[in-house]
Amino acid sequence: MANIRRLVLDVLKPHTPTLVDLAVQLADLEGIEGVDISLKEMDQKVENVKITCEGENINFEQVERVIMENGASIHSLDKVSAGASIIEEVTTQQD
Amino acid sequence: MANIRRLVLDVLKPHTPTLVDLAVQLADLEGIEGVDISLKEMDQKVENVKITCEGENINFEQVERVIMENGASIHSLDKVSAGASIIEEVTTQQD
Amino acid sequence: MANIRRLVLDVLKPHTPTLVDLAVQLADLEGIEGVDISLKEMDQKVENVKITCEGENINFEQVERVIMENGASIHSLDKVSAGASIIEEVTTQQD
Amino acid sequence: MANIRRLVLDVLKPHTPTLVDLAVQLADLEGIEGVDISLKEMDQKVENVKITCEGENINFEQVERVIMENGASIHSLDKVSAGASIIEEVTTQQD
Amino acid sequence: MANIRRLVLDVLKPHTPTLVDLAVQLADLEGIEGVDISLKEMDQKVENVKITCEGENINFEQVERVIMENGASIHSLDKVSAGASIIEEVTTQQD
Amino acid sequence: MANIRRLVLDVLKPHTPTLVDLAVQLADLEGIEGVDISLKEMDQKVENVKITCEGENINFEQVERVIMENGASIHSLDKVSAGASIIEEVTTQQD
Amino acid sequence: MANIRRLVLDVLKPHTPTLVDLAVQLADLEGIEGVDISLKEMDQKVENVKITCEGENINFEQVERVIMENGASIHSLDKVSAGASIIEEVTTQQD
Repeated sequence: MANIRRLVLDVLKPHTPTLVDLAVQLADLEGIEGVDISLKEMDQKVENVKITCEGENINFEQVERVIMENGASIHSLDKVSAGASIIEEVTTQQD
Repeated sequence: MANIRRLVLDVLKPHTPTLVDLAVQLADLEGIEGVDISLKEMDQKVENVKITCEGENINFEQVERVIMENGASIHSLDKVSAGASIIEEVTTQQD
Repeated sequence: MANIRRLVLDVLKPHTPTLVDLAVQLADLEGIEGVDISLKEMDQKVENVKITCEGENINFEQVERVIMENGASIHSLDKVSAGASIIEEVTTQQD
Repeated sequence: MANIRRLVLDVLKPHTPTLVDLAVQLADLEGIEGVDISLKEMDQKVENVKITCEGENINFEQVERVIMENGASIHSLDKVSAGASIIEEVTTQQD
Repeated sequence: MANIRRLVLDVLKPHTPTLVDLAVQLADLEGIEGVDISLKEMDQKVENVKITCEGENINFEQVERVIMENGASIHSLDKVSAGASIIEEVTTQQD
Repeated sequence: MANIRRLVLDVLKPHTPTLVDLAVQLADLEGIEGVDISLKEMDQKVENVKITCEGENINFEQVERVIMENGASIHSLDKVSAGASIIEEVTTQQD
Repeated sequence: MANIRRLVLDVLKPHTPTLVDLAVQLADLEGIEGVDISLKEMDQKVENVKITCEGENINFEQVERVIMENGASIHSLDKVSAGASIIEEVTTQQD
């Protein structure tokens, strides 16, 4: 079965754990090479963050579990790459 | 006959299967090197996604079949590359 | 005589043949290395597409013939490169 | 004397010769490596095109002659590069 | 545990220490390869700066301490990268 | 003394000499590797052009003299690079 | 102590010395590899310029002194890089 190579997630999280803690936990998962977390919006209770994970063979269920165990929830799964190589989305006349 | 090297499709799909499942199924097809699926819009019933496939020799009928077997439909075929190399669309004064 | 290296065409075509079929037919022509077809607009009868062809030695008459044999017509020839190398259009203060 | 390495011309031409014919004629000139012609505007009588020529040693008079012999005229000379290398215009705070 | 590879911080600081002093102090921390500080806004009392740190193994607590010991405070942690490689955030259709 | 490596000048010139002649004259100066002249605006009497010169060791006085001997004048000196390497201006939050 | 690798300064200067003179003086300082000066605005008395300096080990006090000895003043210090490598500021969702 083809490997998952990249995931981009829109996530709502409480202030704790911090972006640093969550990034380290995700980067610790097997099959993940690197994680980027960017803050989109923040209010008194929650932070809306964008998470990008890349790796040779990402296990989506493990990513989901780490997010939920930290009291956060996936608002949407915005982008997935699968296969032997990560290919980039191509701009078209319809974009 | 020249090979199909890249396809960009605008697809309407139900929430299940997820982007992850659909990307893996497409990346499993012979002749496909990688697949990117990006979420464009989502409502209660359907998701509008943009699918980019690249490979040495893509079989369009197989791509179509995987999409339809998952209860999804191709809204439009937005871009196709064929030939010995993938060439990029060039911006012109008419764009 | 200098070779034609790249062509960009604005074409009106019926829904059949598909972008895939037309791209493969063009990429099959001698002297063409790769073809990209992008959908610009589509209505019930026709599709307006942008076709980019690259190669060592493109025969414009053959490209024209393939397009016409498929019931399509060239609305405009938007860009041509000729010579030993493909050179890129340069942005100026007048653009 | 320093060589001319790149020229960008804004040209008005009749529909005949085509962009293809004009590009090939210019690319045939000695000292020209490649030619790009882009369509800017077109009406019933004339086409306004942007011509970019690159080469080791471009002879401007020959370029001018080919354009005029085809019934076209140079509306403006928008960019010239001369010297041992082609250097690119640099964006400044005044642009 | 996965390493922190990049941090982007939005910081409020007094005019002293200068951007130069603060950048040097942060770049002196173990595990930091380079620091960029950019001025966003400045009024009579404070400066709002954006700090980017990159390295093999950044210690967030040490970064925090240096910032606080200089009388500055972290307004928000805008971006974190962790893992074996620094991966870049990918633009999606939702951005 | 450090060498001048790049100059960008905003120049007003009469229609004669042409951009081609002026570019060749400047590129002929010792220490200049290449010259780019771009047309910004043109009216019946004058042309406003942007001149970029690059080289190992540009003599500004000679550049100035060539411009003036051709009946042109420097409206402003928009950019200068000096030193062992050409470094690029960096975009900041203040731009 | 970590080295300063890049500085971007917003400076007000009289018309004399010219951008050329000031760039050469700064590029002559030890530890500076290259200098770029760009004109932002100019009126009858002063010029507002943006100065970028890069090098292995920039001495900020010397840069400051050269600027002041020329009758100019630093309006703001817009960007500083320090450390073993020059790292680039990263765009975030907050920019």
